[in-house]
Amino acid sequence: MATLKVPANVPPPEEDAQKLKKAFAGWGTDEEGIIGILSHRNGAQRKLIREAYAAAHGEDLLKELEKELSGDFLRAILLWTLDPVERDAHLANEATKKLTGSNLVIMEIACTRSSYDLFKVRQAYHARYKKSLEEDVAHHTTGDFRKLLVPLVSAFRYEGDEIDMMLAKSEAKILHGKITGKAYADEELIRILTTRSKAQLNATLNQYNDHFGNAITKDLKADDPKDEYLRFLRATIKCLTSPEKYYEKTLRLAISGLGTDEWALTRVIVTQAEVNLQRIKEEYHKRNSVTLAHAIAGDTSGDYEKFLLALVGNENA
Amino acid sequence: MATLKVPANVPPPEEDAQKLKKAFAGWGTDEEGIIGILSHRNGAQRKLIREAYAAAHGEDLLKELEKELSGDFLRAILLWTLDPVERDAHLANEATKKLTGSNLVIMEIACTRSSYDLFKVRQAYHARYKKSLEEDVAHHTTGDFRKLLVPLVSAFRYEGDEIDMMLAKSEAKILHGKITGKAYADEELIRILTTRSKAQLNATLNQYNDHFGNAITKDLKADDPKDEYLRFLRATIKCLTSPEKYYEKTLRLAISGLGTDEWALTRVIVTQAEVNLQRIKEEYHKRNSVTLAHAIAGDTSGDYEKFLLALVGNENA
Repeated sequence: MATLKVPANVPPPEEDAQKLKKAFAGWGTDEEGIIGILSHRNGAQRKLIREAYAAAHGEDLLKELEKELSGDFLRAILLWTLDPVERDAHLANEATKKLTGSNLVIMEIACTRSSYDLFKVRQAYHARYKKSLEEDVAHHTTGDFRKLLVPLVSAFRYEGDEIDMMLAKSEAKILHGKITGKAYADEELIRILTTRSKAQLNATLNQYNDHFGNAITKDLKADDPKDEYLRFLRATIKCLTSPEKYYEKTLRLAISGLGTDEWALTRVIVTQAEVNLQRIKEEYHKRNSVTLAHAIAGDTSGDYEKFLLALVGNENA
Repeated sequence: MATLKVPANVPPPEEDAQKLKKAFAGWGTDEEGIIGILSHRNGAQRKLIREAYAAAHGEDLLKELEKELSGDFLRAILLWTLDPVERDAHLANEATKKLTGSNLVIMEIACTRSSYDLFKVRQAYHARYKKSLEEDVAHHTTGDFRKLLVPLVSAFRYEGDEIDMMLAKSEAKILHGKITGKAYADEELIRILTTRSKAQLNATLNQYNDHFGNAITKDLKADDPKDEYLRFLRATIKCLTSPEKYYEKTLRLAISGLGTDEWALTRVIVTQAEVNLQRIKEEYHKRNSVTLAHAIAGDTSGDYEKFLLALVGNENA
């Protein structure tokens, strides 16, 4: 469930575009005016506003925002204003160029979007970067990470609910054998995680739990809890089977501790506000005993804070 | 270029459907009548005929053909009548269930169809088999074949003409290093072959040829010409860079020697008649000093022969 709040009567996109133009005009910039409009329009509406803005003023709204705003607020509002599929292509491309933590971003896009949406991201990637997503991912990763990540981004998983119980049992056994043998990047293990439908995978992991006494993620933690690849593998499994728990943890890590990881915080809020942020908020509250809005308000400030809280659906937190 | 010949004035699909119904009626079956219609209609027209047939007679045209015809002729006409994307899904699924030679069929579909058409095959596979193509391919292959085949069927290659010459040089060097070291299933070699655009790959293989003195396929033959995986690897490279040569050889092997490989012969003619069979015919003539039509006429007979020759564009061979 989304947290995005769209008013009952949305003004025509031409009117929104005109108001945004006014917000940019003169000496200062009317940040609140910008937030007031953009944070309460869904993807289709934002697209129409961009088109209306280009038609009326001959400028790309994203470029105008870039001139007027800065810092975390700018990044958040740019990502939000982008079409979701273009945004994912942008985030994935950015991730192929970074050194650390970026494999998670690519994995997240590959594992939480629907099969067809992931395909649309791959199409948008062609159009924008004149390359394929998988070729950049394959080129910029190595070793076990590559073995897991390339098939994840290339997958077009079946999305039906049909489950083959015999297969679930036999593949749970395969997984257990590999993990017992510490063959964490074994090709059979990777085959199962990267090609099976989420429903089938869920059945397999339930069988694993029932027959071998532990959740698979627990067994993957027993060996060396700090191992980077094992952490990545656990995150992948979590993302495929309980995306809201994965996102809750990502938010928790971004907010907690010294300093805030705005890169991760922005990404999760912006990409999930129209999709699943309501469930993620509930998980967050349950796990941290404070609301997500409260935690964001405590860790951020200014227009960035206001914008995130509007997307989270708690303007007055 | 296609060899399919469609008359200037195509009758309405209802009329074709009616004529087909008549061809099925009574004691015998009018095979020539069936060939006369279906072998001269393109994919879109055949689809309309199937729809018109179902609307007028409440039966699936494919099921009716199955009742009336048999053997190689039946298989050829069924495959031909199917929508190209459904046909590829069917061929790929059939191939995952066979033991030998079938990896080539899957590779062929992955490497010769356009990126978007390959994606549509994956969609059709979901719809028809309630599974993903890559999960079946991954599940039914092992070892080096799997390492190459799964990324091939999962690819969504960029299709632009842009070439990065520096990259072509550096990746030609990587390929040469791996081949010199006999690391034929090395992940870098597989990464390059399975993710780069065909234009980029072509540039890389030209660099290979220029800098290391041999075509890559020649170097891949030097070690052990009979090795199954190396043959598969060479076929893959040929399919990606010179599909008409790949198909010429497939036809040559299907026709030459004792007996005919109707399974391969039918597949190539049926899948290419609307696409690239004209070029394949030219290659065939050049390489074998007889026309493809002549060779088919010499190796097949009856309605099967008539039907293939009609698709090849040589009714009167």
